[in-house]
Amino acid sequence: MAEKQKKSVLVVGGGAVGAIAALNLEIGGLATVTVVLRSNFKAVNEGGYFIESCDHGILKGWKPSFVRNEVPDISAEKLNPYDYIILTTKNIPDIPPSISSLISPALPPNNTHTTLVLIQNGLNIERPFLKSHPSTAVLSGVSLIGSAETAPSIIVQDDKDRLLIGPFSNPSLDPSTSSAKAQEFVEMYGRGGKTECVYSENVLRDRWRKLVYNACLNPICAITGLDTGRIRLADQGIEGIVRPAMREIVEAAKARGVELEEGVVGTMIEIDPLDIYLSPSMLADVRKGNFIEHENLLGEPLREGLAAGVSMPTLTVIYNICRTIQWRTREARGFVEIPPKRKAAE
Amino acid sequence: MAEKQKKSVLVVGGGAVGAIAALNLEIGGLATVTVVLRSNFKAVNEGGYFIESCDHGILKGWKPSFVRNEVPDISAEKLNPYDYIILTTKNIPDIPPSISSLISPALPPNNTHTTLVLIQNGLNIERPFLKSHPSTAVLSGVSLIGSAETAPSIIVQDDKDRLLIGPFSNPSLDPSTSSAKAQEFVEMYGRGGKTECVYSENVLRDRWRKLVYNACLNPICAITGLDTGRIRLADQGIEGIVRPAMREIVEAAKARGVELEEGVVGTMIEIDPLDIYLSPSMLADVRKGNFIEHENLLGEPLREGLAAGVSMPTLTVIYNICRTIQWRTREARGFVEIPPKRKAAE
Repeated sequence: MAEKQKKSVLVVGGGAVGAIAALNLEIGGLATVTVVLRSNFKAVNEGGYFIESCDHGILKGWKPSFVRNEVPDISAEKLNPYDYIILTTKNIPDIPPSISSLISPALPPNNTHTTLVLIQNGLNIERPFLKSHPSTAVLSGVSLIGSAETAPSIIVQDDKDRLLIGPFSNPSLDPSTSSAKAQEFVEMYGRGGKTECVYSENVLRDRWRKLVYNACLNPICAITGLDTGRIRLADQGIEGIVRPAMREIVEAAKARGVELEEGVVGTMIEIDPLDIYLSPSMLADVRKGNFIEHENLLGEPLREGLAAGVSMPTLTVIYNICRTIQWRTREARGFVEIPPKRKAAE
Repeated sequence: MAEKQKKSVLVVGGGAVGAIAALNLEIGGLATVTVVLRSNFKAVNEGGYFIESCDHGILKGWKPSFVRNEVPDISAEKLNPYDYIILTTKNIPDIPPSISSLISPALPPNNTHTTLVLIQNGLNIERPFLKSHPSTAVLSGVSLIGSAETAPSIIVQDDKDRLLIGPFSNPSLDPSTSSAKAQEFVEMYGRGGKTECVYSENVLRDRWRKLVYNACLNPICAITGLDTGRIRLADQGIEGIVRPAMREIVEAAKARGVELEEGVVGTMIEIDPLDIYLSPSMLADVRKGNFIEHENLLGEPLREGLAAGVSMPTLTVIYNICRTIQWRTREARGFVEIPPKRKAAE
């Protein structure tokens, strides 16, 4: 009997999350993976990844089946549509181009074949695709991996890959369609046996729960310049800022119908061991002069909570500070023009 | 007739404010000034100040009568007590040593001769002296100068020196004593004719009014990394953070019996012309890795407002962020010990 046809998977973004996703899919043997890279294309294309992983051990020069430096134009190249497109890039809707325009060469607006998988953080990230690609099944991926790309093509994974996959609700599709795709994806991703990929019916709960960390600790570390260990040691870091902020997210989730478990605030404060002094993504981004993901991680849950009548004074301030920090990066990169400085003599 | 005896004045802190104060006092001819310097002692002692001033023009190599590198021990040196001691240093009560211990060699606890003048920002700064030196007259100096020390001994003053002097209330003293000293000081300081030094009966109002700027714009610029021009241009800088914070100070002042003029918030937002892109003191301090003055500038008015039942959600967050930033500086300077970072193998 002929071997079952492998699924074709396009992974957009081959950083710390995307590289491990590509690796899990390839070793499972059910998928052929193409990874689209930007800043690390040259390094990976020439020498492959160097991966030091608690799940996979040490891999030197590992490469997925295909490596590309831009999203393929399937129409111009006469390629078959991919079975899955996985997005693992940062998601920064306030900075163009939009992700939906970025992937459009590989995903026609009227697509029904390809399933989109968003392994990205934050709330309402599916909404742009429900507009631009209403007939596309979109899956939620909530990754609880601890991994970093310490230099181009060098991936260090020091905490297990756990991935929650479930269907985003889509008013244009039969729910069973997306649900079946999610289950197929879970099977394909977990087949290699090195990871924990779980089907989750309650995507919204998964996302709100992760926001207790990502809407609070993540931007607060970025603003204060303190990592997750130091913010716990600093005067008033937790009691004055982090805990009140997390409580606001728990209340906002509740007002939107998502009841998180008691103790989730304490769990999230201590989820990173103090003495690993981890820099959450937004702190790492601020230090590198990169844009931050505050709109999906904080802006969306804040707007949802406020619209539901929840009082969120701490996160309102944190969010507005994030906006000014994003403006600072835009100005530093020349996206904003400001009046010239007055000369001393004037 | 013999020339009237000049007053002896000790200025502690010879930076941007102290140097101009010393200059005004010396050119008035009614005072002999000793300036105590720290970081810029060598530069000033050897070559004097280079002063570029909108009030005084350009002065090369100007020196006050005496320059010292520490507060004189008047008992050991058998010096007469000073008529005035002016403090122009930063006031950072959360970082030892305290200012009252710093000046104690020149000011015995039971002093009645020397008048203390605090040309420093913030609220309740007289309280430590009411305890340590209850019989000393203490004056409030609110300086509206625009000046900076751009390098050791180089002073650039680009906005006029305006100084409001008035008596702090002191339960141990007859109010007329402090009031007379304040009027004498105003005469002595303004005699040179290059400055605007005004007697003010309402010290508390002067201080709360300046806090509309200093409790809000100052720390918010420090936290966001934006100067006073850029915070006005940045998304949500003013409407999302600065204006709500300033309104909280106006309400706190009101609850403490100080009614500020209508429009004070707008005045303070625009008090620095946008296109000079001024870095307020706390932003300058954060950039240099110095400690910040958030306790007197923000902590005290916040505590007073909250105690009076005012809702101050914005400033509560801003204050707690300031505390974590101060902790970060303490850690960077080795004042705080933290658990060692876990090794990768563990």
